[in-house]
Amino acid sequence: MLFKVEMVVKLPVDMPVSQSDALKKTERELAQQLQASGKWRHLWRIAGQYANVSIFDVESNEELHQLLMSLPLYPYMAMDVTALCRHPSSIRDADL
Amino acid sequence: MLFKVEMVVKLPVDMPVSQSDALKKTERELAQQLQASGKWRHLWRIAGQYANVSIFDVESNEELHQLLMSLPLYPYMAMDVTALCRHPSSIRDADL
Amino acid sequence: MLFKVEMVVKLPVDMPVSQSDALKKTERELAQQLQASGKWRHLWRIAGQYANVSIFDVESNEELHQLLMSLPLYPYMAMDVTALCRHPSSIRDADL
Amino acid sequence: MLFKVEMVVKLPVDMPVSQSDALKKTERELAQQLQASGKWRHLWRIAGQYANVSIFDVESNEELHQLLMSLPLYPYMAMDVTALCRHPSSIRDADL
Amino acid sequence: MLFKVEMVVKLPVDMPVSQSDALKKTERELAQQLQASGKWRHLWRIAGQYANVSIFDVESNEELHQLLMSLPLYPYMAMDVTALCRHPSSIRDADL
Amino acid sequence: MLFKVEMVVKLPVDMPVSQSDALKKTERELAQQLQASGKWRHLWRIAGQYANVSIFDVESNEELHQLLMSLPLYPYMAMDVTALCRHPSSIRDADL
Amino acid sequence: MLFKVEMVVKLPVDMPVSQSDALKKTERELAQQLQASGKWRHLWRIAGQYANVSIFDVESNEELHQLLMSLPLYPYMAMDVTALCRHPSSIRDADL
Amino acid sequence: MLFKVEMVVKLPVDMPVSQSDALKKTERELAQQLQASGKWRHLWRIAGQYANVSIFDVESNEELHQLLMSLPLYPYMAMDVTALCRHPSSIRDADL
Amino acid sequence: MLFKVEMVVKLPVDMPVSQSDALKKTERELAQQLQASGKWRHLWRIAGQYANVSIFDVESNEELHQLLMSLPLYPYMAMDVTALCRHPSSIRDADL
Amino acid sequence: MLFKVEMVVKLPVDMPVSQSDALKKTERELAQQLQASGKWRHLWRIAGQYANVSIFDVESNEELHQLLMSLPLYPYMAMDVTALCRHPSSIRDADL
Repeated sequence: MLFKVEMVVKLPVDMPVSQSDALKKTERELAQQLQASGKWRHLWRIAGQYANVSIFDVESNEELHQLLMSLPLYPYMAMDVTALCRHPSSIRDADL
Repeated sequence: MLFKVEMVVKLPVDMPVSQSDALKKTERELAQQLQASGKWRHLWRIAGQYANVSIFDVESNEELHQLLMSLPLYPYMAMDVTALCRHPSSIRDADL
Repeated sequence: MLFKVEMVVKLPVDMPVSQSDALKKTERELAQQLQASGKWRHLWRIAGQYANVSIFDVESNEELHQLLMSLPLYPYMAMDVTALCRHPSSIRDADL
Repeated sequence: MLFKVEMVVKLPVDMPVSQSDALKKTERELAQQLQASGKWRHLWRIAGQYANVSIFDVESNEELHQLLMSLPLYPYMAMDVTALCRHPSSIRDADL
Repeated sequence: MLFKVEMVVKLPVDMPVSQSDALKKTERELAQQLQASGKWRHLWRIAGQYANVSIFDVESNEELHQLLMSLPLYPYMAMDVTALCRHPSSIRDADL
Repeated sequence: MLFKVEMVVKLPVDMPVSQSDALKKTERELAQQLQASGKWRHLWRIAGQYANVSIFDVESNEELHQLLMSLPLYPYMAMDVTALCRHPSSIRDADL
Repeated sequence: MLFKVEMVVKLPVDMPVSQSDALKKTERELAQQLQASGKWRHLWRIAGQYANVSIFDVESNEELHQLLMSLPLYPYMAMDVTALCRHPSSIRDADL
Repeated sequence: MLFKVEMVVKLPVDMPVSQSDALKKTERELAQQLQASGKWRHLWRIAGQYANVSIFDVESNEELHQLLMSLPLYPYMAMDVTALCRHPSSIRDADL
Repeated sequence: MLFKVEMVVKLPVDMPVSQSDALKKTERELAQQLQASGKWRHLWRIAGQYANVSIFDVESNEELHQLLMSLPLYPYMAMDVTALCRHPSSIRDADL
Repeated sequence: MLFKVEMVVKLPVDMPVSQSDALKKTERELAQQLQASGKWRHLWRIAGQYANVSIFDVESNEELHQLLMSLPLYPYMAMDVTALCRHPSSIRDADL
């Protein structure tokens, strides 16, 4: 079951570089692990923004919530969640 | 080069069914042809809305504009375009 | 899996009463059938508005979309969909 | 008498964990006590958000206000209150 | 129990004067009857707008909804409802 | 001459309780004195909000401004001012 | 007593030119008469818009409302009213 | 050439009084000097707000920008600029 | 003196093609004439929208207003006007 | 390929002047170097705002993102990106 999630990151301008670097590193590791598992299906950067457009493939709303809450940058992100479903004109079998 | 486009369709409530059916049929045919060509890379329905989230892969802003303007439902749609680029944490080769 | 859906109805002011009465009657019949099936779990009127707050319990985003599109008043409604999940402080077994 | 209340929690990112844990613990205890009393009728998490959708069943606007102001997290929450009433198409006796 | 209701009237510009006059006349009669009954406690015009600020004193959300839906101009009005309660600094006994 | 003023209070979450208590006490005393004088005609709490709906009866825009600026909580409040006038359907002599 | 009023005019695109010309002519005559009387103190066009910024000098909110409602274009205008008062740094005697 | 500028001042609540007094004093002196020069043609307070509506008469966009940036309170103000021109119904020679 | 103007065109969906073609043809001729004269300095299409971003170089707000009002599509366009001036970091002599 | 980017700068009011001066100096140097290279094609100040309107000419969304992220003021700016393409009525060869 697919969801589009748009995440905007707002780190405090006075956060020490060592702290933000550590946060971004663990965020990247978890993001890549979730991509490898197939749960985080797509991940794109929005041009000019510290923000992304993501597609998640999960079993339930609950699973989506747990994944998002587990992200190290979660306390610094605004999230926008949209439930998706198969489009009747889609020809791409994987997009369901 | 990737763009997210969100399209919301608003057909006049008094449009004859024969006209809306014809419009939707030609729209679907063109959408499927553009998907087959690789230009319209993803197409999902937004749950509960007569709207979609799409990912286009085009050579230029110009090509994106020409594709969108060619859609039969264009006069009845509101479009929202967002330029995307590769995310540094992405592990998916195709998402560039 | 639960979703909150808020629906605002906007009938054209010049719709004949016979037409709006027929629409509302079939809408009510379907709404009651969906409530009886357990799919449309709660349905409340918003005070002062021709609008409702609803809770749906469905298998998937896809099923939610099909239910909402099947409503006779769908062409006259604005829909707002929010994915819900169990709250860790909830003590009510049914609210999952 | 029913009200939908949507609460969004925004804790300062620099609040000590011991303080936020204590706040959340007393919040949960009060929330569960109010649910047990029947005043806080439903409580759902919004997927991907530190936010909830709640249904309260109170005697008056005044009682609703007192309940909300008594929540330990109140100073950190944005509240959105909507008065509900029975929907003429509802078949669920408890939803009044 | 008090509610503030703000109503904005939008009559179609091509409504015949005889029809709008008749609507306004029955609206005024009902408004005055509801004021006499104590249900519609205050009614002010917003300067420069075809709109009003009203205070209703009702037994329940349900009664408020029935009163508002009974207004002849209801199909042409946008309504905004806010639940009020007694202010701890108020010295006016009637404002509860 | 009447004005509706809606005031939303946002105290910094780290303001010492002694300071906020002192501010609220002087605010209440001034609010009650202005009510007694007839200038602050109505004062209601918005349910679930640290906010109020007020009706002021003043000689001029200037007098309204001076009253609002004199409130001890003014630096912590967002104000929304709406000029009111008598409604042609009002039957309440005092509401002018 | 001064008020800033911003008016945006939206004439239906299918209004006959003879009707719009007649409306604009009577609007202009009344606007000039109100300026001559000192009630409509300033009137500027917003560049690029069929809209104006105006300053009115009236005895009361009531008088402002009556003036605005008397404008022939009133049914086709959106109005935004802001109460003004003398600025403590103003050196211009007339701006009170 | 005329511009309407609306300025909203937001001083930090913890700014020392001596600093805010000094800022306001130099702001007032410059504002009065610019009024005397004819550049700052009108200056009104918005009732209930720490905000003003101003009319500037300048040679160019560039001159307007330089004037606004020179204000001591500039770092604490949100500015909204609207280009004005003579209204065809204006009878006031100075309003051009 | 430079202004950015963003124009969004909304033609009625039922406008006859012959009428819209004629409008667009005269619009294009005037746009090209104004570009040739140097008044309309830049004109770009917004990708995916029937809208443009333009830069005008005019003597005054008044001249800008007259140019925009003279466009054949003016009644069908929403305009957004922003006054520009030279940027201190610009190295391009023409951008003033 | 052209993009309009609007940047609004918000420096913390308590940033030391030496720090903001250093930031602005390196920002200006990079901006001028990017203009000289042809990548940053236009740069205008918005009158009355610490903000600019810019036109970038880049090979791809990716290149635009890298340029914007490299700006020293990036952490203090809100960015708004709009993809542009050639307008069919443009007569200016460079505007493509």
